[in-house]
Amino acid sequence: MPVAEASVRKRTAGIVGAGSIGSAFAIVFAAAGHRVVVQDPAAASLENARTRVSTSLQELKQFDLLDEPAEDVAGRIAYVADLSQAVHEADFIQECAPERLELKQPLFTEIERHAKPDAIIASSASAIPASRSMGHLDTRHRCLVCHPGNPPYLIPVIEIVPAPFTDPNVAEQAQRFFAAAGMSPIMVRKEIEGFVFNRLQGALLREAYCLFRDGVASIEEIDSIVRDGLGMRWSFMGPFETVDLNTQGGLASHAQKMGPAYARMGKERGQDDPWTSDLVERATAERRSSLAIEDWQKRTEWRDRQLMALLRHRRRLAVNQNNSTTAQAAK
Amino acid sequence: MPVAEASVRKRTAGIVGAGSIGSAFAIVFAAAGHRVVVQDPAAASLENARTRVSTSLQELKQFDLLDEPAEDVAGRIAYVADLSQAVHEADFIQECAPERLELKQPLFTEIERHAKPDAIIASSASAIPASRSMGHLDTRHRCLVCHPGNPPYLIPVIEIVPAPFTDPNVAEQAQRFFAAAGMSPIMVRKEIEGFVFNRLQGALLREAYCLFRDGVASIEEIDSIVRDGLGMRWSFMGPFETVDLNTQGGLASHAQKMGPAYARMGKERGQDDPWTSDLVERATAERRSSLAIEDWQKRTEWRDRQLMALLRHRRRLAVNQNNSTTAQAAK
Repeated sequence: MPVAEASVRKRTAGIVGAGSIGSAFAIVFAAAGHRVVVQDPAAASLENARTRVSTSLQELKQFDLLDEPAEDVAGRIAYVADLSQAVHEADFIQECAPERLELKQPLFTEIERHAKPDAIIASSASAIPASRSMGHLDTRHRCLVCHPGNPPYLIPVIEIVPAPFTDPNVAEQAQRFFAAAGMSPIMVRKEIEGFVFNRLQGALLREAYCLFRDGVASIEEIDSIVRDGLGMRWSFMGPFETVDLNTQGGLASHAQKMGPAYARMGKERGQDDPWTSDLVERATAERRSSLAIEDWQKRTEWRDRQLMALLRHRRRLAVNQNNSTTAQAAK
Repeated sequence: MPVAEASVRKRTAGIVGAGSIGSAFAIVFAAAGHRVVVQDPAAASLENARTRVSTSLQELKQFDLLDEPAEDVAGRIAYVADLSQAVHEADFIQECAPERLELKQPLFTEIERHAKPDAIIASSASAIPASRSMGHLDTRHRCLVCHPGNPPYLIPVIEIVPAPFTDPNVAEQAQRFFAAAGMSPIMVRKEIEGFVFNRLQGALLREAYCLFRDGVASIEEIDSIVRDGLGMRWSFMGPFETVDLNTQGGLASHAQKMGPAYARMGKERGQDDPWTSDLVERATAERRSSLAIEDWQKRTEWRDRQLMALLRHRRRLAVNQNNSTTAQAAK
């Protein structure tokens, strides 16, 4: 089956929708060496996409994030108005239409009609599972969600979310395809609305809106508390490693010390999902298999050096920005 | 009133508790030029703190994050076993004891007994408000929570959380004191358990535990989705600016497009805090006063360059780590 080798061979990728996500995917696929066809019915969108891709590729080059000349990568991308043209030769099809079910469903019918029988069809949906948007297709076994961050050529993570009807081989091929393109694909093990990325983002945003609503903090103050606090650690550790390293004794000790307070805060929002001892034990067992408790101290020292490096990075960035402002002002 | 000038004059800071937070605060205050007395009844804790402070100061110097020689900063810090000795000359007292109410309450009684009448008394509590831990004090008007990230010399944000009984001048002085020490103090406007930092962290962690419990993703997969996804953007934008820039039309448009899905996900967890049109309007008004919609496109380009700089930073860090591993192996 030709798709089995999508991750190693250079293939053709069809992108349906030339908005910000579509054009960003064009960069991911073309930089990985694939031929790319971007489709959008609106000529203006296509033109915007072409400009955006070209600018972004030049910036990537300036930041040392591109191995080839920008023009070589751009040269592998074609822009077309016709759906069948984008889809009929593609080995991998990435749908990037707006997040509306009534729009995605007929679009997938159309994509299926023109796609090669062995092409993988992926949806970029942020929250809508494939079961809802693609369940009506005859060849739904080769359909799934591949949900990126925004923009996908700068956010490494991509959620691979098969529906119950998705062929597991297809999901694995999609995972390999994105890994080969330098992304960090995560296979989501159960299909739920919002997947993992937007479940987590939604939980934080809902609490943030509550705090703003209740006059506890302003929008800018909440952003600042994340930007200069929580987000710094999460940007290189994630939430579990963060609290694992925050408390002597690790995750189990954190759950014991902070769990009751977090449960009370949750109750205030109507949530009752207790961190049972069984749950904490299972979480701790997995965490301890990544980091033995004997290595905990060393890892907190690693965390501190990572934070120092991040602070130094911020300072240099601020200095450069000031310098370039000064340089511009001097012109 | 002497405390009024705490932010500009060099003062004496007393730190009660020499654990990881206490010793990290010693670095913050000493690096800001203040004389520091760290107290802990356990000789071993004091010795650990001294070693930890000395190592951290040397590392800060290596990372270009310290303006003076490490020894000069370390020389301003004294370590004592006796509480009264740490407290009686201090202008600013930072309590850094474990997060247990039954332990903090008598400790504050003791601190108050030895403190100068005009000293500010701050608690490092992660979630316990001053009303609960300090409400019994005679001089509670000069008491409040100043909750840092961990470790405070590397996480800029600190939450200033006055109780209803806290003199507003005291809260402002505390804010200036930390700002003068190079931190980013945020005044929390209403006293609630968990403040803003741990409300947000708790909301994300509760959802993360649910996803793990339900077999949607592993601990490591959840960490990876934050580390290589959500956390990258949050580390320089915060949650509101992130979604403001994610959707053409900004925050209002995001709430309209994603709000219903987030509300459904919240309902599944028992939460019913609708993003009413009035709430979204108020949030949007504040956000638009920081970033006019005409500047939105430029700001998304700024975001992309910030992400590129962050990716380049990560790559260089990885290269350096590989090199130093190779260098060590070659020894």
